Amino acid sequence: MNPKLAQALFAPRSVAIVGQSDDPGKAAGRPLKFLRLMGFAGRIFPINPRREQVLGERAWPSLSALPEVPEHAYIVTATQAAVEAVEECARLGVAVATVLADGFAEAGEHGLAREERLRATCARTGIRIVGPSSLGVVDLRSKAMLTANAAFDAASLPLGRIFVGSHSGSMIGALATRGSARGLGFAALVSVGNEIDLSLGEICAATLGDPGIDAYMLFLETMRHADALRRFALAAAAQGKPVIAYKLGRSAAARELAITHTGALAGEDDIADVFLKSCGIARVDTLEGLIEGAALLARVPAAPAGLSRKRVGVVTTTAGGATMVVDPLANRGIEIEPASAATLARLAAAGIDVRPARIVDLTVAGARYESMKSALDILLAAPEFDLVLAVVGSSARHYPQATVRPIIDSAVKGKPLAAFLVPEAPEALAALSQAGVPNFRTPEACADAIAAALARRPPLAIAAGRLGRASCKAQQFGAAVSDVGSREELYPTYEEKGDARSGRVLDELESGTLLDRLGIPRAPAAVLAADVAHFPELPFPYPVAVKILSAAITHKTDIGGVALGVADAPALLAEIQKMRDRLAQRLPPIRLDCVLVQPMISGIGEVLVGYRVDRDVGPLVMLAAGGVLAEIIRDRSLRLAPADLATAREMIAEVRGLIALAGYRDKPKGDLDALAQAIVALSQLADDPAVAEAEINPLIVRPAGEGVIAVDAVVRLV
Amino acid sequence: MNPKLAQALFAPRSVAIVGQSDDPGKAAGRPLKFLRLMGFAGRIFPINPRREQVLGERAWPSLSALPEVPEHAYIVTATQAAVEAVEECARLGVAVATVLADGFAEAGEHGLAREERLRATCARTGIRIVGPSSLGVVDLRSKAMLTANAAFDAASLPLGRIFVGSHSGSMIGALATRGSARGLGFAALVSVGNEIDLSLGEICAATLGDPGIDAYMLFLETMRHADALRRFALAAAAQGKPVIAYKLGRSAAARELAITHTGALAGEDDIADVFLKSCGIARVDTLEGLIEGAALLARVPAAPAGLSRKRVGVVTTTAGGATMVVDPLANRGIEIEPASAATLARLAAAGIDVRPARIVDLTVAGARYESMKSALDILLAAPEFDLVLAVVGSSARHYPQATVRPIIDSAVKGKPLAAFLVPEAPEALAALSQAGVPNFRTPEACADAIAAALARRPPLAIAAGRLGRASCKAQQFGAAVSDVGSREELYPTYEEKGDARSGRVLDELESGTLLDRLGIPRAPAAVLAADVAHFPELPFPYPVAVKILSAAITHKTDIGGVALGVADAPALLAEIQKMRDRLAQRLPPIRLDCVLVQPMISGIGEVLVGYRVDRDVGPLVMLAAGGVLAEIIRDRSLRLAPADLATAREMIAEVRGLIALAGYRDKPKGDLDALAQAIVALSQLADDPAVAEAEINPLIVRPAGEGVIAVDAVVRLV
Repeated sequence: MNPKLAQALFAPRSVAIVGQSDDPGKAAGRPLKFLRLMGFAGRIFPINPRREQVLGERAWPSLSALPEVPEHAYIVTATQAAVEAVEECARLGVAVATVLADGFAEAGEHGLAREERLRATCARTGIRIVGPSSLGVVDLRSKAMLTANAAFDAASLPLGRIFVGSHSGSMIGALATRGSARGLGFAALVSVGNEIDLSLGEICAATLGDPGIDAYMLFLETMRHADALRRFALAAAAQGKPVIAYKLGRSAAARELAITHTGALAGEDDIADVFLKSCGIARVDTLEGLIEGAALLARVPAAPAGLSRKRVGVVTTTAGGATMVVDPLANRGIEIEPASAATLARLAAAGIDVRPARIVDLTVAGARYESMKSALDILLAAPEFDLVLAVVGSSARHYPQATVRPIIDSAVKGKPLAAFLVPEAPEALAALSQAGVPNFRTPEACADAIAAALARRPPLAIAAGRLGRASCKAQQFGAAVSDVGSREELYPTYEEKGDARSGRVLDELESGTLLDRLGIPRAPAAVLAADVAHFPELPFPYPVAVKILSAAITHKTDIGGVALGVADAPALLAEIQKMRDRLAQRLPPIRLDCVLVQPMISGIGEVLVGYRVDRDVGPLVMLAAGGVLAEIIRDRSLRLAPADLATAREMIAEVRGLIALAGYRDKPKGDLDALAQAIVALSQLADDPAVAEAEINPLIVRPAGEGVIAVDAVVRLV
Repeated sequence: MNPKLAQALFAPRSVAIVGQSDDPGKAAGRPLKFLRLMGFAGRIFPINPRREQVLGERAWPSLSALPEVPEHAYIVTATQAAVEAVEECARLGVAVATVLADGFAEAGEHGLAREERLRATCARTGIRIVGPSSLGVVDLRSKAMLTANAAFDAASLPLGRIFVGSHSGSMIGALATRGSARGLGFAALVSVGNEIDLSLGEICAATLGDPGIDAYMLFLETMRHADALRRFALAAAAQGKPVIAYKLGRSAAARELAITHTGALAGEDDIADVFLKSCGIARVDTLEGLIEGAALLARVPAAPAGLSRKRVGVVTTTAGGATMVVDPLANRGIEIEPASAATLARLAAAGIDVRPARIVDLTVAGARYESMKSALDILLAAPEFDLVLAVVGSSARHYPQATVRPIIDSAVKGKPLAAFLVPEAPEALAALSQAGVPNFRTPEACADAIAAALARRPPLAIAAGRLGRASCKAQQFGAAVSDVGSREELYPTYEEKGDARSGRVLDELESGTLLDRLGIPRAPAAVLAADVAHFPELPFPYPVAVKILSAAITHKTDIGGVALGVADAPALLAEIQKMRDRLAQRLPPIRLDCVLVQPMISGIGEVLVGYRVDRDVGPLVMLAAGGVLAEIIRDRSLRLAPADLATAREMIAEVRGLIALAGYRDKPKGDLDALAQAIVALSQLADDPAVAEAEINPLIVRPAGEGVIAVDAVVRLV
């Protein structure tokens, strides 16, 4: 936490609005209007060199003409003037400058140059910048309405205890107004823009000492500055303040938009997923799940490590309405747990007539206070449920005393209870919110938030040194996965794009040595001189595989540099000769010195295990199934590296193509213990700063008890 | 359409409430209360044998004591009394009886007996029944409030032009109240309950002549009476009245609930999907997509046959807000189409400064009326978009004149235009609804409804004789798919459950003859006597496959009745001897007379093509990829049978495991033309009423130009 920064950001004693317009309808006209509307108590200095007055107040010609140095300047001028204003702020000693203008990283070469200039100013002077492209900073307690977002044109926004950090400026307004309509108030909201200096994580962290903030709500467009986000998340977890996040980028189209819109590269979505989970941040998928889910986190603390929580008990007055939530819950992997025999007996003893079924349906018992209250109390005390969901039908609107009041009365502090109301029932929703009971307007947001809350775990403690240890623009895993079965394409542009991928690639033999060091079994290999003339003595029987051995050639298959199932010694010599001829013809500058010979290895499955240092989130380990369909459906599991055995087993369970190896139908079981050990071993590369990427493909999985064997591997150094 | 039935249902001249309670808070107290509240103009006869008066009105002791025969009786008594009341209605000549009580099919043996009794009454007397388990029938025009749903306790429900049919009684209240909150009015709503007589489809069809109804909104829990639904849908399409549906049952948990809740077996979800699509019904996945999507269908007519529409153009004042819709749209297969060069040029000529990108972002141009209006008009005229979506940020709430008004002004009748407003902006949403512009409150409902509307096609004309031609409780496809590669388990319980599966199974040779008749190539086969002693002459070379030939044994693999890759004649004789021995040991009553010998067939892919008559929706054809992963992720495509070549090609494109056969990376292409022909050929079984099920597994796909070959097939007769 950083109280001084937090003060300059959210409770400055004096503010300047650089470029304040006289037109309250324009973006640049709004900050002064909103500050006055809300009654900001600090000193306000509107700056406009072309006017004596703005919105009826004295306008100052420049920052340097002010009678004092403001603590926080909101710069709402056009792009070039904004760069100059930041520099003036820095000269004068303004603590924080928030910049509205866009035209930086997202605007090509000129924009990047401007951004560099701002960064240099920060580094030189210590001024802190929010933005650029920031719609501003709003604190509903201090009334510091340093924002150009039109949504803050209302004095009635409810004050609350949630802090909002958003990459999108529009969304701070949307969350404030939508939250307000759902009875949710906010303490402060910040649009972080392009984060060229202050990142979302750093800004949130600065507020951690704020006693008026209980929880954090994030709207994310990228995983930029993931290290700062993780530091914040760890500290927030230590204080028991939950963090809920919505992140754009589930689709490739959205990730492409993030580049044109913010200038930030959006990483693959499952990496963001794993990262947020490792930070103990609950990720939701729906806009209303974000707003409505915040209250649920307070009742569903992060699951203890190793404990999977996914059993929801449902009590309802409408089976059809309840099923609307059951469908999306089940499709998110949540189990709709039937009441146990003991629970059914307790219900019967309480005079509640329900049929044994997947949900507790009170239709027969009737939508009465007593039955709903008793049913809730019995379900909340039952050990078979991780969370109890009450789904109320038409009575929620017309007889809330009968069916909504008991939910409020049963919602003792901390009980994992949520409510979904099937009809339009704003008063009942408001009553639930008022009482602190998590409540949902749509079945989709309800299922989304419940699944996110139950999946939340305490953050992993990762050594700080590993954070953001991205060495270069690392290859995306996608490229690796997409080459299961022909891994030579894994580094398709390595030689061509030496600029982007500076590290040396180890040849297959060197890569094998690294596997040995990690303790990952690999196929035996013999190196033969490519000009071998006599029949070689091999330490293993035929048939064999033979491959070109050269770090300079990563597309071995493409140039005919791999032959499989070579039956005997004469065939081996013939294959080697063919490889030499082909290489001489296609890549004359490269001389074939050596070939690698391996026995043919068979197993009952093939997987790919990969490691790389991600640009945003640092070291990752990945497991993917072999085969084209696995590739098409991106059947893979990721974790931060290093991973432990329990984590590796989770990864194996997540890859659907490996279900067959766990003993599916009459299929033989694979040695998944050995596979888990190999995953753990490869993930230890996180402790080796020299390695940027490593990939074993294929790793052959043999029957249970017979281990795994790496047949090929590629390693790239930093 | 059936005007007489429609009148008795929705505009009866006289009604009786059998079991009307004196307590307006009870379900049985509501109908009279609501009828009076709304001002029903017909004659009302409350019946309660235990009271002189109910709710201050005269109560009649019985139906037979009434001075006239009411047209429609709503029976709100307990179960047993309801059965008797229906019988009395029938005796007296009441046209329609609607039954509130549950305790029928969902309540075990006694319930089924009661249901049978009601059915018999219908058959004998011609009385029509809505329900049982019906929360009633509501017409907001005639004010016939024959409902016990508490949601209708409001005189202010807006009248509209949408008809609601729902399996769930609670949902008619939820849709009425939620629709009302979103400016959507209804003409009439019906809770169809268990549909023992009048089905949802028949009730909807009865209203097709109603000039006050423009569109239909369905809430479905099962596909029961799919034939009636199809007949209605075809007639509605002919009248240009769109149908939008939400169907529960995406998850297995929900399908299980449907049984306990309604007594109806819920079929597999993708069958419902295919069926609804074939009816021209737009299926949505979100509750608000159902409510908000209705208006969109009026602007997006069903796509002409053979035309795929999936290109959405997005214009926005907030890139972050727009991306919230882009993500779920893209994940539903919708393409976010960038503006073409010509469109960008037109935008530039109109003075609108946008960067070339996947969406048209007006941030730079400014959130002004002129820029939004011009941009919308240019996009709506551009040929590259099937639909234009406007996403408006904070200005939607605070300056709707600037950004919402132009949407209304551009929304000329019929233009495929929709709006999503990012902040809470109820007034702007109301203005859009008022103007007939489809508008959405959440990004999820917006994407859901757009995807459903664009996917809608005109209904297929299916010969009426094929509808519901389900012969018995047919095996689910799931069981078939789950046995790719070991299809002997396809009929795992056939012999055991002879009751449920009455049809004769053809042996492999007979099945082969059927394939010949359909023109599907199959592997040559030779039949050998199982006691063959000399080396047989085969019409094809070794290696061969040999199998037990017996319709009595469907688990050939399980009893060691299949041997593959048999190298030569002595080996063949040895294998046959082994099979005889095994059979004698394990299934002594069955004598092995013959074996089937086939050449080993290789190809570049294996698929399963199946046909069956579904209990609900009739003849279906199915294509699935081979392999365990395909099975786990249910990688299959279904259509109603018979299917034409274009449909078969669509099916092939939908199965992800077949992408490899379409020329993926360096893989050889498969003969997908021949595969399509085989699908079409098998689907022709729809014209053969003798066949209940047929499955080719595997069908070997060979390289392009080399055809497909069926290696094994199972056929079951009706």
